[in-house]
Amino acid sequence: MMLPLCRFHQRFLHIQWLVTHTWTRAFCDSQISEEVAKLLELKAQLGDEAPKKFVLKCPKGTRDYNPVQMSIREGVFKTIISCFKRHGAETIDTPVFELKETLTGKYGEDSKLIYDLKDQGGELLSLRYDLTVPFARYLAMNKINAIKRYHIAKVYRRDNPAMTRGRFREFYQCDFDIAGQYDVMLPDAECVKIVAEILTQLDIGDFKIRINHRKLLDGMFAACGVPDDKFRTICSAVDKLDKTFWDDVRAEMVDEKGLSPEAADKIGHFVKFSGGIDTIEQLMKDESLAKQKDAVEGLEELKVLLTYCDLYKVTDKVVFDLSLARGLDYYTGVIYEACLQGYAHKPEASKGKEEECVSVGSVAGGGRYDGLVGMFDARGKKVPCVGVSIGIERIFAIMEQRALANNTKVRTTETEVYVVSAQKHLVEHRLKLCQELWDADIKTEQSYKKNPKALDQFQYCETNGIPIAIILGQSEIESNCVTMKNTVTRAERKVSRDDLVEEIRKELSSLS
Amino acid sequence: MMLPLCRFHQRFLHIQWLVTHTWTRAFCDSQISEEVAKLLELKAQLGDEAPKKFVLKCPKGTRDYNPVQMSIREGVFKTIISCFKRHGAETIDTPVFELKETLTGKYGEDSKLIYDLKDQGGELLSLRYDLTVPFARYLAMNKINAIKRYHIAKVYRRDNPAMTRGRFREFYQCDFDIAGQYDVMLPDAECVKIVAEILTQLDIGDFKIRINHRKLLDGMFAACGVPDDKFRTICSAVDKLDKTFWDDVRAEMVDEKGLSPEAADKIGHFVKFSGGIDTIEQLMKDESLAKQKDAVEGLEELKVLLTYCDLYKVTDKVVFDLSLARGLDYYTGVIYEACLQGYAHKPEASKGKEEECVSVGSVAGGGRYDGLVGMFDARGKKVPCVGVSIGIERIFAIMEQRALANNTKVRTTETEVYVVSAQKHLVEHRLKLCQELWDADIKTEQSYKKNPKALDQFQYCETNGIPIAIILGQSEIESNCVTMKNTVTRAERKVSRDDLVEEIRKELSSLS
Repeated sequence: MMLPLCRFHQRFLHIQWLVTHTWTRAFCDSQISEEVAKLLELKAQLGDEAPKKFVLKCPKGTRDYNPVQMSIREGVFKTIISCFKRHGAETIDTPVFELKETLTGKYGEDSKLIYDLKDQGGELLSLRYDLTVPFARYLAMNKINAIKRYHIAKVYRRDNPAMTRGRFREFYQCDFDIAGQYDVMLPDAECVKIVAEILTQLDIGDFKIRINHRKLLDGMFAACGVPDDKFRTICSAVDKLDKTFWDDVRAEMVDEKGLSPEAADKIGHFVKFSGGIDTIEQLMKDESLAKQKDAVEGLEELKVLLTYCDLYKVTDKVVFDLSLARGLDYYTGVIYEACLQGYAHKPEASKGKEEECVSVGSVAGGGRYDGLVGMFDARGKKVPCVGVSIGIERIFAIMEQRALANNTKVRTTETEVYVVSAQKHLVEHRLKLCQELWDADIKTEQSYKKNPKALDQFQYCETNGIPIAIILGQSEIESNCVTMKNTVTRAERKVSRDDLVEEIRKELSSLS
Repeated sequence: MMLPLCRFHQRFLHIQWLVTHTWTRAFCDSQISEEVAKLLELKAQLGDEAPKKFVLKCPKGTRDYNPVQMSIREGVFKTIISCFKRHGAETIDTPVFELKETLTGKYGEDSKLIYDLKDQGGELLSLRYDLTVPFARYLAMNKINAIKRYHIAKVYRRDNPAMTRGRFREFYQCDFDIAGQYDVMLPDAECVKIVAEILTQLDIGDFKIRINHRKLLDGMFAACGVPDDKFRTICSAVDKLDKTFWDDVRAEMVDEKGLSPEAADKIGHFVKFSGGIDTIEQLMKDESLAKQKDAVEGLEELKVLLTYCDLYKVTDKVVFDLSLARGLDYYTGVIYEACLQGYAHKPEASKGKEEECVSVGSVAGGGRYDGLVGMFDARGKKVPCVGVSIGIERIFAIMEQRALANNTKVRTTETEVYVVSAQKHLVEHRLKLCQELWDADIKTEQSYKKNPKALDQFQYCETNGIPIAIILGQSEIESNCVTMKNTVTRAERKVSRDDLVEEIRKELSSLS
């Protein structure tokens, strides 16, 4: 339901569009008159209420990044990209929107969160929901059978934003994926290693990488007596265990999704299992699971994965957890999720306060999706894939809070030199000097005032942490020199114009 | 008008949405049945024609970047960003979409090219059309009076794509802007300097930066007898002079826009003026212009700008051109446009072949927009701004063509070491070794096969330009060493495991 004011505004925009769009086409005048009449009618209905005042804001669930935030963001990206490159990944990019059909049928119950573009008389388009489906489309379209790539870009979800906890409608994903027909768990283990390396290097606190297997889940559902056609929807319910209590999940299964109470209780028994190789071995002995081919395969693969994780020295970071489900439809094998410790991933306090308690939690996730590329291929040719996605916004949120808490001064520019006018009427000399420094690749700024005050210029150096001031006065110009001042120690000395670039370089290297 | 097949498909998607969206709400079942009935009806209308086959493609006017293209793109960005940083700029980011109202009334006749999002029951949103309007919104919203910032991000225009010439519907802009109340032409001249630095360093051929002034244009229009309310639309017509012949532009002015033939001819006289300071001085003597305050101001400012350009040593790159208009509504002062020479910006051949002749041409543009921020401020408080935008896609197009023509091998990864299994059953040893190298920050890859063939492994090194192979065999393992091989010279030697990291670092530094 749209509010009348909103409708008024929309019609107004439509007329505006007609007016601009049909600028040169006289035959549309009648159409415009008709629209204006309708608008006036609407206005009459609204009575005295004036059209809503324009509010200056970002769209709901989105934000700007100011220079300080950008500086933090660049640092985080640098750490992540160097990890991806350390593991030999290349990078690709895809458009921010895809044909609507490309995204259809890939996200299960989450499909309702996809942003669609308006039909403006061309193709039907939607904003990308993740980087995985575009990656699969890219592989199928270019008939690529093997690639190790990373992709860092924004994705879009019409979800309920919780911006202080880093949950946005526009947010970055940092994806690393390995596509190709390879041997069991070798690419999968490297993904775990990469998550561990990145979270360790970002130094944002202790973390655990929870792992599970879709085949084990399916086998477990079968063993519990869940009908085949309810696997995915029951899986979605299990996925909520990281945010909701078992009682609520059980209610969803039984009351909403029509599962028998017995089956639900059997699931309730299994989802408590979590641990290491010993837990896997314990489950291997479970008679009801042993009858399920899928469950056996899943357990065997998980055992190999944990062995490899041990060789990669990340055992202390990894925990097998049968309650991990992950929402997306396309996973077919191992699934991962990394959570920060100390940020509870389950509400500890009373249920009423749930919103406040669920904290940053999950900061990375992923898994194996062997069927997705095949969905795009005319002959259904499959390309097995496994990958992880780093949830960068939550990491930013922590880093920002920390910078704020420590009152850290973050430099947002890299300027090395500020050219200062010591007196009036030197603008042309300043410009000449800046030109020389820029051409020598020295990061240089100056005032955009013709005759700036000395105090303002030194103040600028201090505010922006610029280490060197080059001072230009009439006497300096006459003797072909400048005064070079260290803005921190306040030490200054005369330097000949001929040696200036060299002297600046020396001073800079002594500072770093 | 939508085609029936298209309508069929759209309705199908709608049902799919209803099904997923209303998953748990029984009361919606009737709604779904109704939709399905309508769908079947539509299908009957279509007869035997099956729903259109899904086409695997990127949306019209967009493209993926493969790893080679990304590698070229990263190089170009690096050059541009280091120039922006050399001039002391910070960076910001804004959401890819804005409230529709934020973009309304900023782009004149081009507004029809804005991508709108579908109304999904929230705010009305549009994809950003450029980075300038979001920047102005950012300044007004955060009450910022002075900033020097760059912003590199994708923008969206529902324009007619011409992808081989680098004209896309999704494309990057690299913007540099200086906001603040400063003295005449000081920030404006730095923008010209920056464009000259970037285009010189990218080394993509000779270029010229054309400059003009909106006030001079307005004064000129007034002197020619153009009515006030036709300034902007006549300006739009003049803007087409870089792609169209004067005769066609004149016809647009007279026949479509209702300008008197006399006024059009007077404009035709002025738009021929182009040159340096001498041309400015010649126009200063023109009696009809001298009567127009705007024209006099524009000419005086341009004279200062050219003087500063001389001090910045870019005079040979700059040309005043009274036919430069630029389409956007928001410019209020100096305007710029940089064109590559040798890429004709006007069709030289027969008019029929126009499409083929108009080539890459413009690679940067911008100007002063003193009123835009005020449009977002409740009290209309103005923040004067000037900036340039680098048209990066056209530069990519040239760089790509060149790499292709020179058959340049572009490395898309930075891998330094490949760990090779010399025989079977060594996977666990390989994993251990990789772990050691990664933890020592050495960029390392290995095969994802358990028992890879030696030939395949060396082939991988060659294809990907990996300089060092570390070979692991049973004998090496027993003697706690490895064989280190330079994959180019094929020289190899035994290295103790204890010294391996150090030896690899030595080898790498000898290579670079």
